[in-house]
Parts: sequence; structure tokens; C-alpha cells
Amino acid sequence: MAEATYIAVDWGTSSFRLWLMDAGHTVLNERRSGEGMTSAAETGFATVLEAHLAAVSAPENAPVIICGMAGARQGWVEAGYADAPAPLSSVLEGAVSVPGQIRDIRILPGIAQRAADAPDVMRGEETQLLGALGTASSGKQLVCMPGTHSKWVNVEDSRVTSFASFMTGEVFDVLSKQSILKHAVAGAEGFDGSHPAFLAAIKRAVSAPAMVTNLIFTSRSGQLLNGLDATSAAARLSGTLIGTEIAGGLFAAGGTVETIQLVASGRLQGLYEAAFEALGLGYQTVDADLAVRNGLGAAAQTLFFSDARMPA
Amino acid sequence: MAEATYIAVDWGTSSFRLWLMDAGHTVLNERRSGEGMTSAAETGFATVLEAHLAAVSAPENAPVIICGMAGARQGWVEAGYADAPAPLSSVLEGAVSVPGQIRDIRILPGIAQRAADAPDVMRGEETQLLGALGTASSGKQLVCMPGTHSKWVNVEDSRVTSFASFMTGEVFDVLSKQSILKHAVAGAEGFDGSHPAFLAAIKRAVSAPAMVTNLIFTSRSGQLLNGLDATSAAARLSGTLIGTEIAGGLFAAGGTVETIQLVASGRLQGLYEAAFEALGLGYQTVDADLAVRNGLGAAAQTLFFSDARMPA
Repeated sequence: MAEATYIAVDWGTSSFRLWLMDAGHTVLNERRSGEGMTSAAETGFATVLEAHLAAVSAPENAPVIICGMAGARQGWVEAGYADAPAPLSSVLEGAVSVPGQIRDIRILPGIAQRAADAPDVMRGEETQLLGALGTASSGKQLVCMPGTHSKWVNVEDSRVTSFASFMTGEVFDVLSKQSILKHAVAGAEGFDGSHPAFLAAIKRAVSAPAMVTNLIFTSRSGQLLNGLDATSAAARLSGTLIGTEIAGGLFAAGGTVETIQLVASGRLQGLYEAAFEALGLGYQTVDADLAVRNGLGAAAQTLFFSDARMPA
Repeated sequence: MAEATYIAVDWGTSSFRLWLMDAGHTVLNERRSGEGMTSAAETGFATVLEAHLAAVSAPENAPVIICGMAGARQGWVEAGYADAPAPLSSVLEGAVSVPGQIRDIRILPGIAQRAADAPDVMRGEETQLLGALGTASSGKQLVCMPGTHSKWVNVEDSRVTSFASFMTGEVFDVLSKQSILKHAVAGAEGFDGSHPAFLAAIKRAVSAPAMVTNLIFTSRSGQLLNGLDATSAAARLSGTLIGTEIAGGLFAAGGTVETIQLVASGRLQGLYEAAFEALGLGYQTVDADLAVRNGLGAAAQTLFFSDARMPA
């Protein structure tokens, strides 16, 4: 069996994922839990990490590379930001060490865009970008990274030139649970990208994004007047918000794009792929889990094994 | 002292307003409370109304005219909807009587737009429209009625031809309280339409409505990166949502409009007037309180005193 050489951790706001990796960047073992930054800030980051390391029998000397909210101000150790425009390699240079640990533990920084009229931040997505594009890609790329706060990133010659966050996932969540729309979506079943209400909403939102707060209201009024079912109401709300985001991402990219690089996995991957197809937009999908592991692996390679000699 | 002749009530989801009126439609007394439909559905609508009638010493034979959510399915007595396109006079024809009461109590219907692709409802605003425009206006009018669910209404020759609701007020509320933006707006003080962050957000949202879920996120990222203060963050969130609504209302009106009829009062009046001025849009303001009283008065005149003889 291959020997565990390093540990890769994606530590988000509400999720924790750990992979035990060998020298060839093959996954030997994996842990997933809900002990994200919010929960770990109470339990203690070291405690959470050590429990998972013990569970996978990580070698005592194996170093740990971490990305995500563990590096936020309210996280474990603040890892700051590389400032955009930022070469993806700057993510490696800005890594900080966690002091007072037996292991070598590093946390990767985020990327900040400090423009007064378009301030923005990412933390975790920069590592996905590193994994998806590497540090030697050339030409212009538009990368779409769906999520709670989706990121649309303009990359040129491996440099993040600008990016924009869209609160799509969170707005869907609070409107579904806390607004009058909760009556319309109560009891909704899962839907996928082939749902007609989702696809119709995608097209309507892209053709008239100014109508977004009206289109979401029609999930409720359609229920009252036309008997719109809960699943269709949820699909309409989702399609409206995702469609508006796509219109915004393309607007921010400032022109036509040949191929959108979609970094996603699971359900969101399916929804965004269906949306792009319905809109006739070219795309290429990179699995988000693979991207973050590849990014963490590239960082581990540079930070821990930079003499190109992997530990025996 | 003038004699009380009828009682006008605007009974919304979360608010109750009652006016004791004389035959010349002058307000003799007024009551305001938070006993809206939600609360009155538990206490009992008759109980709530009688307590307020007693408090203003309403004559026992004086009739009561009511608009708003008291006529919803989950209200006191369902008053249904007039279907758009709807002459404003159809609001008078659709009034329903509350059975089993000593007084003559009538509730006005709402207006429904049953189009499958743009279902919409209003309840209360139809009475404001009646009061603001009457039943004999001519030509095309675009009416903006800001609120929790703002309405933009296209009227032609006193007929509601189409309308659209925008969830501006509710989206502001849930995002301010339930999303990550609560950190950015915590402790915000009141701002008015002259706040630079409000006006800048209005212009940005109108010029790029597809960016709405990004622009609202910059309330948070601006706080993290640029030290944006809480009041400016709230003003930016408000301006972004109102600006997107204005862009949508103009889009739905399908072209240029000479003068927007703004039916508003209080703080929202100031914000929308400032927004219209910043955008160079012509507008004319009708006080929303006056509009609803005038509409209720017109209904009372027709329904209770239609022989044009006011009771002695």
C-alpha cells in the first residue's frame, strides 16, 4: 500500500473535508464533516483536525495543507489575501504556518479585489482555480464557480485579473426559508436541470435580469392563481437566481466568451450545465472536488517538497 | 362638529388603520395599530374592529368600508379579485358584505393578473389606485407603489392593463436580518435619499441589473476590505434593490414614460423621489395615505350613498 505523505484539507464556513494523500497525489483516505469554521471556532481548530488525522491514522510527521475559511480573520490563523490582479502562484507564496504545532501545517491565503467600486473576496476558490488551471495556463479564461456565493473569475495568463461574487445560493436559501416564498416552495421535491420551470426561468432571467425580484414573486402568485406546484416554484426561484447570475457573470466578463470553465460538482454542476446548454453557451466542466485537491496538492508540492524530492 | 357618516379601514397583513369620516370625506378621528390580518385572524376580525370603533365612538349605524388583506382567503371574508385588464370601477362592483353584523360592512376585492407567464396579485393597492386616479382618468399612466411587495401598474383610460410586483422591501428585510449581510448592516442608522451610497447604488443597479446579487454582496466585501460603514452598507443594499426594481418597472412598462405616478408616503416616498431625480425620471407624487382614504371614500360613496344623498 502507498505511503501517506501529506494531508489536504478544504475547511469552509460550514464544512470540513480532509484527504490523506500519497506522494503521487492519490487519495488514500477521506473524511467529511460539518465541522466548518463556525463550529471549529468553538471546539478548537487543532482539536477538530487532530481527531480527523487520528481517524485516518495519519503519520505523525506528515504535513498538512489547508485552504478556505480556516484562514479567515475569525478562523484558525489569518492567512490574509493575495491582491488581484494576482498570479495564481501568489496563493502559494502567501501561505502562513500555524504556530505551536508538532506537524508542519500551512494555510493558503484568499484573493482580494480592493477596487473601491467592486470590492470582493474569495477564500477556497483560489485553490480550486490553482487546481483547475495550474500556474502556466495562457490566454483569457472565464471561470464560473457556483455556490453559496458563486464566483465568476476572469483569468488571463494564469493571473486572476478580476472577479465577482454573486449571492445566488444564500439568496435562494433565505428566500426559501424566511420570506413569503416559503409557502410556495414548502414540500418541494428535488428537481434537476431538465425541469421545465427551471429552464424557462433561466431564459427569462437572462433576457430581463431587471425583473429578478418580480420573477421570484411569481413563484408565489403562480401558486395562488395558477396552482403552480411547490417543486416548480422552487425550480423557478432557482432558475431565476442562477439565470440572473449568469447574465451578471457574462456582463462582468465584458463581452463574448467562447467557453466558460465551470468548476462544480454534484447537483450544482447539473443545474449550471443545463442552464448553459439552454442558453447556447459553450462550457467545459472541471470537477470542483478534484480541482481543490489538485490545488492543495500543487501547494503541498511547492511548500513541503520543493526540492522535487518526495519524502521516502 | 361634523357628524361621523362612515368608517374607512385599510387592513393589511401586519397593520390596521381606521378613519372616522364625515359626509364630506373629512377625517374626524384616526386609529393605527399592528393588528393586521395575521394578528386579527387569531383575535377575531370583528373583535378587533369593534374595539377600534368603540374607541372613536363610531355611530352604531355608520357603515364600514374595508380594503386590504382582510379580504384575502386567510382573512375575514374572502373578497376575491377583479381580473386584469380591469377597470378601476370593477373594484367597487366586487365588494362583498360581511354577514351577521349589525353594521353594513363591505370588503373590497383585489386585482389579479392570471397570465400564466406573469401571474400577479394586489390587495389594497387597487384602492390606492382608485383614490389616486379615480374612475375617469384618460391616457396611459405608469404608477409606482413602493412597499414590501412594490407594485408597478400600467393604467390606460382608468383600466389596469397589467402590473408587476417586486419583492424589494421583503428582500431587503430578510437579507438585512438573515443573510451574511447582517454583519455589514448591523448598527446602521437611518439614511435618506441623499445618502451618496444610496444614490450610487441606484445608478449602478439601473445600468447593470444583472449584477444585483453581486452588488448586494459588495455591502459585505466593502466592509471587509474598505471599511464601509454600516449605514452606507444598508444604503447600498437599499439602493441596489430599489434601482433594480425601477429598471424592472420601466422594462415592464415597455418603453419610455413621461411621468411616473409615485404613490408613496413617509420614508419610501423620499427614497423613490431621490432615486427618480438621480435617474432624471419625471414623477409626480400622490400621498399613499391620502390615496387609500380617497379610494375608500369613493367606494363608500358608491356603495353606501349611491343615491347621492348623504345620510343626515
